[in-house]
Amino acid sequence: MEKSKKKNCTVRFEPSGLKTEVPIGTILLEAAHKAGIYLSSICGGDGYCGKCKVIVEHSSQVQSKPTALLTPDEVRENVVLACQSKVLSDVTVTVPKSHTLETTQILMDASAHRFSQLAGDIRAGVFEFDPLVKKIYLEITPPSVQDHIADHERLYLAIREKIDTPIMQTGFRVLQKLPGLLMKSGYKATVTIGRRGQTTEVIEVEAGDRSKRNFAVAVDLGTTTVVAHLLDLTNATTVDTEATYNSQINFGEDYIRRIIYAEENDAFDEMQNRIVHDVNNLIVTLAERKRIDLQEITTVICAGNTAMVHFLLNLDSTRIRREPYVATAGFVPPIRAAEAGIQINKRGLLYCLPSVAVYVGSDIVAGVLSSRLFTQKGVCLFVDIGTNGEVVLGNRDWLVCASSSAGPAFEGSGVRHGMRAGAGAIEQLNILEDGSIEFKTIGGDAPVGICGSGLLDTLAELFVSGTIDRTGRFTIDPATDNRLSEGDDGLQFQLVPAVEDNHEIVMTQADINNLVRSKAGVFAAIKVLMESTQTKAENLEAVYLAGGFGNFLNVRQAVTIGMLPDVPIEKIHFVGNTSIAGAKAVLLSQKALETAEEIAGSMTYFDLMSHPGYMEEFIRASFLPHTDLSLFPSVIQRQKNHV
Amino acid sequence: MEKSKKKNCTVRFEPSGLKTEVPIGTILLEAAHKAGIYLSSICGGDGYCGKCKVIVEHSSQVQSKPTALLTPDEVRENVVLACQSKVLSDVTVTVPKSHTLETTQILMDASAHRFSQLAGDIRAGVFEFDPLVKKIYLEITPPSVQDHIADHERLYLAIREKIDTPIMQTGFRVLQKLPGLLMKSGYKATVTIGRRGQTTEVIEVEAGDRSKRNFAVAVDLGTTTVVAHLLDLTNATTVDTEATYNSQINFGEDYIRRIIYAEENDAFDEMQNRIVHDVNNLIVTLAERKRIDLQEITTVICAGNTAMVHFLLNLDSTRIRREPYVATAGFVPPIRAAEAGIQINKRGLLYCLPSVAVYVGSDIVAGVLSSRLFTQKGVCLFVDIGTNGEVVLGNRDWLVCASSSAGPAFEGSGVRHGMRAGAGAIEQLNILEDGSIEFKTIGGDAPVGICGSGLLDTLAELFVSGTIDRTGRFTIDPATDNRLSEGDDGLQFQLVPAVEDNHEIVMTQADINNLVRSKAGVFAAIKVLMESTQTKAENLEAVYLAGGFGNFLNVRQAVTIGMLPDVPIEKIHFVGNTSIAGAKAVLLSQKALETAEEIAGSMTYFDLMSHPGYMEEFIRASFLPHTDLSLFPSVIQRQKNHV
Repeated sequence: MEKSKKKNCTVRFEPSGLKTEVPIGTILLEAAHKAGIYLSSICGGDGYCGKCKVIVEHSSQVQSKPTALLTPDEVRENVVLACQSKVLSDVTVTVPKSHTLETTQILMDASAHRFSQLAGDIRAGVFEFDPLVKKIYLEITPPSVQDHIADHERLYLAIREKIDTPIMQTGFRVLQKLPGLLMKSGYKATVTIGRRGQTTEVIEVEAGDRSKRNFAVAVDLGTTTVVAHLLDLTNATTVDTEATYNSQINFGEDYIRRIIYAEENDAFDEMQNRIVHDVNNLIVTLAERKRIDLQEITTVICAGNTAMVHFLLNLDSTRIRREPYVATAGFVPPIRAAEAGIQINKRGLLYCLPSVAVYVGSDIVAGVLSSRLFTQKGVCLFVDIGTNGEVVLGNRDWLVCASSSAGPAFEGSGVRHGMRAGAGAIEQLNILEDGSIEFKTIGGDAPVGICGSGLLDTLAELFVSGTIDRTGRFTIDPATDNRLSEGDDGLQFQLVPAVEDNHEIVMTQADINNLVRSKAGVFAAIKVLMESTQTKAENLEAVYLAGGFGNFLNVRQAVTIGMLPDVPIEKIHFVGNTSIAGAKAVLLSQKALETAEEIAGSMTYFDLMSHPGYMEEFIRASFLPHTDLSLFPSVIQRQKNHV
Repeated sequence: MEKSKKKNCTVRFEPSGLKTEVPIGTILLEAAHKAGIYLSSICGGDGYCGKCKVIVEHSSQVQSKPTALLTPDEVRENVVLACQSKVLSDVTVTVPKSHTLETTQILMDASAHRFSQLAGDIRAGVFEFDPLVKKIYLEITPPSVQDHIADHERLYLAIREKIDTPIMQTGFRVLQKLPGLLMKSGYKATVTIGRRGQTTEVIEVEAGDRSKRNFAVAVDLGTTTVVAHLLDLTNATTVDTEATYNSQINFGEDYIRRIIYAEENDAFDEMQNRIVHDVNNLIVTLAERKRIDLQEITTVICAGNTAMVHFLLNLDSTRIRREPYVATAGFVPPIRAAEAGIQINKRGLLYCLPSVAVYVGSDIVAGVLSSRLFTQKGVCLFVDIGTNGEVVLGNRDWLVCASSSAGPAFEGSGVRHGMRAGAGAIEQLNILEDGSIEFKTIGGDAPVGICGSGLLDTLAELFVSGTIDRTGRFTIDPATDNRLSEGDDGLQFQLVPAVEDNHEIVMTQADINNLVRSKAGVFAAIKVLMESTQTKAENLEAVYLAGGFGNFLNVRQAVTIGMLPDVPIEKIHFVGNTSIAGAKAVLLSQKALETAEEIAGSMTYFDLMSHPGYMEEFIRASFLPHTDLSLFPSVIQRQKNHV
């Protein structure tokens, strides 16, 4: 008997061993996603970032478009770009370790633990402990002939005996089930009430005392990483934390590319599905680990850039990338989480922190909130380095902000061996006086790449040691120093030689240029805000640096490369993931929500693209540390000491 | 070929000609309902009210339980009780005209037109014209580089430029569609905003100017009749009115029987379906007649007794009939009409007026509102005669109320030839000095029964003419006056002889006793409230009598029989259907809603069943006009004049 023509192929990925079956002609990048493997892809599958390199068993198993992004050696070794290759037959694909975003192993955010202690801060009195969603156990006096007030009004009276809630509302379904539940429970019931704008909603009523089981999840909706903290709302403790890669990453590494992809492929639903899926995965993982029923999770609160919040809710995001850059909502009203597909209590609420502008999202508002910049008398600076670099300047009287299109170089994008903070990432690096290099990796693993704090160290150390000059160009001679060689992207400097299975780790001229451009963008933004507000560096009371750098960030290096102004080092505070810290603060205190709304509503946004001085400041900042050395006296001193 | 055994029978109803097919063994009352014929059935099908009499072609076509409610003559004429008869074969059933509630002919409420003028009242300044749901056309400044506020906040700003709405909320679906709609319309859009408690909700956003198309339906949810008024919310005019019988009537004529039926048959869903179906029928009828799209109807507002409101929303009503008589909600929050199955704009709102207690519903609150009793300096009395008789006493400083279990005698129940105000109903009746009887029927048709105002006339005229004495017993001699004869219920007095197809119309001793009990209940309630508040009849500033009596009510007769206190006749005002009038006032003015809430919240309810003096007052009032004649000087005078 003749077999019908086989139309599907099996694609197997190594080293994970994950398999999937796809039709002939499927793009390998899509096959990877289907198998649950998230390959890095900055360009969203357009074929020009070269990040999705994989190795196939035989070149004949796929059909690849010609590309300049592969070296002849790579082509000979059957390296292909997954986004440019169609599957022709069964194939085994090897994914280089540094290029995968492994979702089978959920990544714990490196700075997550730092904020597990936030509850202490809140108790310390900055914000009163007063969560957005509360469970209150009520022993209600049952009705009698003398007291025949209706159940609904009786419930309101009982709630108001416990707390002050002038404006209340109740959903129809709760009203329908209320009498049966009250009678069954002998009028001993637990009510879940949640803040919706200036109104308090009766979200749920349960029989008996369930007031000790009230959980919430705070989410930092990062473009790259999604971090979730599980909180016990009865005592403000962080029960557990978890993080995962944002599975939208196949559609582009930055959100502008994702919007373009979604517009071109009518894929906004898919974009929402992915991020909702990621959030649900985190919630389910946390709930299962702590043996919490999903119905006991009453609240989800999210902070993130404007595009991520729009993706999550499937709000129109097309104008985020088009002048005049308008969001659907900066202040997103609370909705029922189920309406967005989030799997918690079916009547639970989903809150999103407010944003300032399209390019200064709720993650920045959360950062200002959690760094307490808005309470300071002296002027402070807040800088969040992520896929973009956002800057806030101000104090308790005024706040200004801007977003630099710095690009995600310090997140590892556009850097040959750049990677996120994860196992095997170089997070610290020193160039000793003898020129030898010391480094430390996350988890002590063999080095596979360099994460944010490592990139900062590398750039600073190369500069301080004189390996590169103020323009970022290599000053050493390839003839005398064999660590410098000519590579595909021009000159490249070997930081770590290849050992056994691990490839060498280099820093190329292109990498350096990218990092300098990125820091220049951030510093130019800082400069514009400082000039506009006539703030001098010596008058800065504190500088807060936020971002997913990893825990061992050497903030001095941020001054050395000229990313942050030259202030005494004790004034610079690395504050880690302030997006989730701020989200948690709001979750635990209605007053914090009001403060976040005040912050978002009062902050003045500077659009740098239309600002006349920004480009000049950017060019001036495109040197190490700056064209104007008088701005960085400590760096000059350091360089002198080194030499 | 042998036919398989026939299991269904065709039941045809005359004179309507309506047919239905039902399985053998189906109760005839159910078959009637299935055919769309609503037979009067006070007892809910228990077989003891005798109201559902019909005539079958051959007695063998049905199997009927023995009953004492049919006379031997009726049995011989194949009269059966529909609720006690099973269908055995194809059968043609004749429904006596006076016993049908014809739904094929929708009944226009007799007092509906009276309140078509309410808009004038509202404009006159008692309540500011400020409808619960508004449409506002906005020409919003589109975003620009200098002004990039998000769409949602931009919308709020534009709304707040037009009206004062401190607390606003927006549903998720509106938020999702907002940007596309604003862009498509060039930021010229119509927003529908509705009051939800102290919050204003953005219900809908439409492209272009749709502000002139905003309609609402006010509904009086009567136990027997459902009345609907269609209003144009842009100019406060009543566009059209319509009414229909409450199709729950098959489950019992009063709501207590319906609750029992629903409990015993697990039929609360069915109970809701029926009233929702009735309301939808009225809405569709009005909308089609006025060529209004259902999407243009943004609001439905209901007033009715507590049970009817609970049926409509399928809220637990089981405790309405059990001590301590508790409602699910007295203040029902506004819900989306679609949640209850009401077919208007899919995001339109359904409001229910607040109630005072289980037995003093939102119809009474509406009555107090529309009669303006709460604005008066002097003490006023408000009496609503319907299936029950509710009484409110008070002024602008205080309000007390009670419900007498008067029974629906003045609605025609428990009265042999009683019927609702409809074609052929005797609505006026005089006994002249020579003893001859004059009467007037609705529509001038041949008389088929007596409606409320006619019953009041009949009882009063029988008394004033001396045909009955103060105890309600006939004083005339059957031997000398052949209009008096012995019937099935004891003595009966012929008011109208049989003419051609029309049966004679009589008033039996049992009818008189029922009417006297009913009026005694009302008066006793009035007396208890007046005694409790030390109000004397001479201090009453006004008496408002509400109810579906028909337009030609002679209020003097209500004093003659001792139902209302003996105050000068010019102080008594028949105010018709105040339930719908109050609902309309609220619909058209947020201030009226707040006032209704104040009225409902501040009124003191007297539970007459547990009141020590009520039974004694009831017994004292069970005479014509009363045991204490000094309370009714004008009646004594009238009687003297007549004699």
